[in-house]
Amino acid sequence: MAFVNEDNITDLAIKRWSTARSPRVAELMTALVRHIHDYAREVELTSDEWMAAIEWLTATGQISNDKRQEFILASDVVGLSMLVVQMNNRFAEQATPATVLGPFHIDGSPPAPFGFDMSEGIAGTPLFITGKVTDTTGTPIPAAVLDVWQADASGTYEAQMPAIDEARLRAKYQAREDGTYCVRTIAPLGYTIPMDGPVGKLIERTEISEYRPAHVHFMFDETGYKKLITHLFQKDTDYLDSDVVFGVKDALIVPFIEHAPGPSPDGGVMDQPFVLAHYDFVLQPED
Amino acid sequence: MAFVNEDNITDLAIKRWSTARSPRVAELMTALVRHIHDYAREVELTSDEWMAAIEWLTATGQISNDKRQEFILASDVVGLSMLVVQMNNRFAEQATPATVLGPFHIDGSPPAPFGFDMSEGIAGTPLFITGKVTDTTGTPIPAAVLDVWQADASGTYEAQMPAIDEARLRAKYQAREDGTYCVRTIAPLGYTIPMDGPVGKLIERTEISEYRPAHVHFMFDETGYKKLITHLFQKDTDYLDSDVVFGVKDALIVPFIEHAPGPSPDGGVMDQPFVLAHYDFVLQPED
Repeated sequence: MAFVNEDNITDLAIKRWSTARSPRVAELMTALVRHIHDYAREVELTSDEWMAAIEWLTATGQISNDKRQEFILASDVVGLSMLVVQMNNRFAEQATPATVLGPFHIDGSPPAPFGFDMSEGIAGTPLFITGKVTDTTGTPIPAAVLDVWQADASGTYEAQMPAIDEARLRAKYQAREDGTYCVRTIAPLGYTIPMDGPVGKLIERTEISEYRPAHVHFMFDETGYKKLITHLFQKDTDYLDSDVVFGVKDALIVPFIEHAPGPSPDGGVMDQPFVLAHYDFVLQPED
Repeated sequence: MAFVNEDNITDLAIKRWSTARSPRVAELMTALVRHIHDYAREVELTSDEWMAAIEWLTATGQISNDKRQEFILASDVVGLSMLVVQMNNRFAEQATPATVLGPFHIDGSPPAPFGFDMSEGIAGTPLFITGKVTDTTGTPIPAAVLDVWQADASGTYEAQMPAIDEARLRAKYQAREDGTYCVRTIAPLGYTIPMDGPVGKLIERTEISEYRPAHVHFMFDETGYKKLITHLFQKDTDYLDSDVVFGVKDALIVPFIEHAPGPSPDGGVMDQPFVLAHYDFVLQPED
């Protein structure tokens, strides 16, 4: 009967977790045990560091609630979220790439027609985003739905606010029969992730920038195509090359062109300056 | 300017966390990022599995409170706690080895003299544990303090119960000038770890036994010696070779000898059968 020693404990633990009845759970758990043990051995983790990790994990769970998910944030800032996104969304080169979902999407945004202003009553520079939704051959996807959401000028998403009656800076736009769409909103600004929790406290011990560059979120879930969760980023905005959640991809950066008052792409006329971004979303067909 | 792709994200994340101002934090975080990414790549972690992990971690933090530490339990059942204990307590062969602290130690137990009954009023078979506390040359450590705690017959520690006025199954015994000590308690029983939380739910998906073998906890903190946190296990009891927290070491297993009513090692006379365990604790000198 072999009891535990420093040399055999990793093998004993792997053997034990290999008894999971689901082969996939066994694979996930045995690889996890091996990596956790390898990590602890490699850094010669001290008892105090182990306890600090226990306390950090506990605090990270306890600060999370229905408005805040600190473990997703933790996954984001170590690049795990973006790694998982990329491994699970290996699209053709011409398809629009995926990026992180983030914790602020709200299901069931209201339907919105071409040109609808999802920012009504909220301060900011008017922004129109226009383009087409197509497949990878450039064929339009008629009536495709663009689920759009973003933060306000203070970096706050509706999901972070007390419950309100109306959708705020989010809507489900329907493209026209030729695949063209037009979103009216306000120009997003860069913002900082929440820095008052365990993730922020860890980042404060480094030179890591806590900012995200200005972006708008999009989600597509069309029959026959892979689900696409992505952002558009403003070209030349701050923090593009230091996005704290590693979300920026070249193909998602678009110029925001300033326009004087006058005709706008929703078919109307603006009496104030506005900004225009053009982007064609290309959805990856299902296998 | 290199934006993120599936190939470069691990290097980008490692580079970023290497900016921690403390070299040790930089070492811990960069190795952590590398192992987390390697793990995700190796198992090709899916988005659903990633989300299940986020939810599991969150639930594990949220079920923890001042009576329960589910992350310590998680660390215990994957063998991490015991690995860290062993790496941080590399004692001479003749010294008593360390094992897991567990989450149920309470600071400030009351002082107890030779033979004190820390189980008064609690049902169970009387158990005397006797022996000496010495250094690695066999020289007694006079008046050494043995901080002792254990579960009751239902597997419950005082730390798991609502606050009570008196210490329950815990005491700080003082050895005599010749290093001899005598603990009176009740014979411990094997018990199951809490199975109603995220750790238990994971264990239920495997063939892993959720039991710990019968044991009593001891802690020593003598000037000039390494702190020792350990258990004594009953020889031939159930679950010795399947301890769910990997805590059993050969050197910590002691026979529990049954005795008929009669003279007992505290100098008294027992009018009921009792059990006797003998163990000499050997403390490792400081470097």
